Amino acid sequence: MPQKRFLLQESEIPTRWYNVQAEMPNKPLPPLHPGTHQPLKAEDLYPIFAEECSRQELNQTDAWIDIPEEVLDKYKSYRATPLVRAYDLEKALDTPAHIYFKNESTNPLGSHKVNSALAQAYYCKREGVKNVTTETGAGQWGAALAYAARTFGLEAAVYQVKISMQQKPYRSMMMRTFGATVEGSPSMSTRAGKDLITQNPAYSGSLGSAISEAIELATTTPDCKYTLGSVLSHVTLHQTIIGLEAEKQMQQAGEYPDTVIACFGGGSNFGGVAFPFMRHNFNDGRTTEFIAAEPESCPKLTRGEFRYDFGDESGYTPLLPMYTLGHNFHPANIHAGGLRYHGAGTIVSQLIKDRLMTAVDIPQTEAFRAALLFARTEGIIPAPESSHAIAATVREALKAKEAGQQKVILFNLSGHGLIDMTAYDAYLSGDLQDYKVSDTEIARNLQDVPQV
Amino acid sequence: MPQKRFLLQESEIPTRWYNVQAEMPNKPLPPLHPGTHQPLKAEDLYPIFAEECSRQELNQTDAWIDIPEEVLDKYKSYRATPLVRAYDLEKALDTPAHIYFKNESTNPLGSHKVNSALAQAYYCKREGVKNVTTETGAGQWGAALAYAARTFGLEAAVYQVKISMQQKPYRSMMMRTFGATVEGSPSMSTRAGKDLITQNPAYSGSLGSAISEAIELATTTPDCKYTLGSVLSHVTLHQTIIGLEAEKQMQQAGEYPDTVIACFGGGSNFGGVAFPFMRHNFNDGRTTEFIAAEPESCPKLTRGEFRYDFGDESGYTPLLPMYTLGHNFHPANIHAGGLRYHGAGTIVSQLIKDRLMTAVDIPQTEAFRAALLFARTEGIIPAPESSHAIAATVREALKAKEAGQQKVILFNLSGHGLIDMTAYDAYLSGDLQDYKVSDTEIARNLQDVPQV
Repeated sequence: MPQKRFLLQESEIPTRWYNVQAEMPNKPLPPLHPGTHQPLKAEDLYPIFAEECSRQELNQTDAWIDIPEEVLDKYKSYRATPLVRAYDLEKALDTPAHIYFKNESTNPLGSHKVNSALAQAYYCKREGVKNVTTETGAGQWGAALAYAARTFGLEAAVYQVKISMQQKPYRSMMMRTFGATVEGSPSMSTRAGKDLITQNPAYSGSLGSAISEAIELATTTPDCKYTLGSVLSHVTLHQTIIGLEAEKQMQQAGEYPDTVIACFGGGSNFGGVAFPFMRHNFNDGRTTEFIAAEPESCPKLTRGEFRYDFGDESGYTPLLPMYTLGHNFHPANIHAGGLRYHGAGTIVSQLIKDRLMTAVDIPQTEAFRAALLFARTEGIIPAPESSHAIAATVREALKAKEAGQQKVILFNLSGHGLIDMTAYDAYLSGDLQDYKVSDTEIARNLQDVPQV
Repeated sequence: MPQKRFLLQESEIPTRWYNVQAEMPNKPLPPLHPGTHQPLKAEDLYPIFAEECSRQELNQTDAWIDIPEEVLDKYKSYRATPLVRAYDLEKALDTPAHIYFKNESTNPLGSHKVNSALAQAYYCKREGVKNVTTETGAGQWGAALAYAARTFGLEAAVYQVKISMQQKPYRSMMMRTFGATVEGSPSMSTRAGKDLITQNPAYSGSLGSAISEAIELATTTPDCKYTLGSVLSHVTLHQTIIGLEAEKQMQQAGEYPDTVIACFGGGSNFGGVAFPFMRHNFNDGRTTEFIAAEPESCPKLTRGEFRYDFGDESGYTPLLPMYTLGHNFHPANIHAGGLRYHGAGTIVSQLIKDRLMTAVDIPQTEAFRAALLFARTEGIIPAPESSHAIAATVREALKAKEAGQQKVILFNLSGHGLIDMTAYDAYLSGDLQDYKVSDTEIARNLQDVPQV
């Protein structure tokens, strides 16, 4: 019987994260101060983020960053995650492609998010912070941060996007089980939230709105720092543990990926699996293709513009050089709440601009069709977010079939969908729809992007 | 840093199940035909179960049974599960005990149940069966069977206990995602269900009632066999993969358990982890202690009687020699739906009778208190069922602390509780209560047990 799962012993878990900023051909442009439009220094971020995270954010020189021993110790509770060869999916697709997935859904929080949550909470703790706050789209990040905060003895307050609270009440309960407080966003507890509710009382929120509220809480509360689940470069840095493990595991399997695929919200799960392989494109002449799978309803990579824009809806963040749909873009209420974000991280934006990776947009029903196929072949019910990566993988595997190519595809299964069962129920009942964004809507929202 | 997780490579996964019936000092008494009261032969079970399962059920001679290659191949999608040293729980309890747990919650179905679901579905398939049916208490077994049936190309119909459908709607959705049909039990679709509803229209069901309905469907439908999630000896046989793996993993850790603990519903998760270690008590002079943790509200091992009784509420099954509260016993609506069963499997019943193992009963709130401690230390939200094992482990670890004993405790974390979040929500809100059964109620129900 051929081997299905490739495991690493604790001693083989990587002890450093990979910082792609140090090795990419063109570095990302600097974030700008929202008032002065001057390039930011790490110190400018200290009031918001842990100082170490602020320095990592702007570090364009060190390719390798040591994982602190305390974080590594916690990683060892659930890492390394398995690399799995999806034989049954291959068979169902009748494809000559070899499909591998990195199974980040095996950890007890249910997604990759905990990889950065532990790092951010640890740095906060080390720097004497007592409280952390954050936003969460699907609730995966919020649950991970709630656990990480508890682990390092911090209090956590989470703004969960309102529509996500309705779709995924179990995730709020998870956060409370770990001792965090949870509030629906937009809320009346911040000025940002009140303004949004005043403008549109029925607004069910987005990651952009929840970020505004969390930043406001962090900057107006003593001993409190803000933490973020994706988009920023230091978050992606922490996620590179995924790809670094996968690299060792692909070696065990005796293969190397021709294509690496991940779903795309802000970019941390994508960068996490892709950047460690991308370094061999930069340094060793490899020609692996990298595909980010975003939702059709929130198509910043495929249809957005490369502009300086705010990372949040209320304009509290620095201006980031990103592919964006405009910070006022209100994504449709798709079930993949973790992908409902208007912009892309600065590293991925630069890579797209430089054509070093590509992106595809996936309609919601195609994502769920692929998810159902995956569940019924591989036995794992994937998160709606991860299902976008599966759908893109199915497309590539079918292309390989047509071309008769024995291609090696690796995708990141960023999380499971057990908390998202109502979405599957809706899909099975035929109640899910696709949301294609009109050119007019994109153009209208891009008008709100500041001129820099 | 000390090692936390002990893993096995695919080549190290055991290839045989351990059949404790062949080696226990006193074999279980034979099941009796409900009409004639004569000892059953395997052929008598063929109309209900797969023939191979029927033979395994009564096999008291072969200590080792080969796992079919097709089943082993599917096991390799998620096995071996990790053995984990619970350092953070030990620290929180300030105990000198070394606490290990076998983490069956890492598989994508969420519990150990899939180990037997795959075996039973495979044997049905091999014997030309087209449809399988079953009951499910908490939904863990139903979800596992739905997946296993899909995997081997069978149609599955599941009777889910009504209260469980209300408490855990996501589990019904999981079953439907894998393509199974799901009905609440008692239902109007069987005579057994109609009778129960007629007697008590508000009755929210139990495992005993759902078993009656599934057996009735199996025996009245062409090409249809019944499958069971626990209680019977062949189900427990399939679960011994847990303990056999754990034995190898404890060797890696350089320790051997003084105490093995598992929660107890029908006995399959308990036997699965315990019997492989128990064989060394029988054969090699080991003196490991084995503790089954049952709910205070359904105390068959601690307060039931050893009698021949039916396995189901309507009296369709053979008479089994078991510790029982009476097949008409209606357990309280605790959240640990998988433990709401009136009787114990025949092997465990004999072992309790022979004082080769012990049992404790755990109040619901003590189980959730232990669960919360476990979640906040080890990061895993346990299933309400498994929480009973954790509570019993906490008791033992605190005893070890008092005695200053560096005891080695192993418990089976049979599943995660992500689908049971409403139970945690209720616990955190102070809405959960304990249900102590009165002596009168036990005596009254034991009057309905047939005289044999």
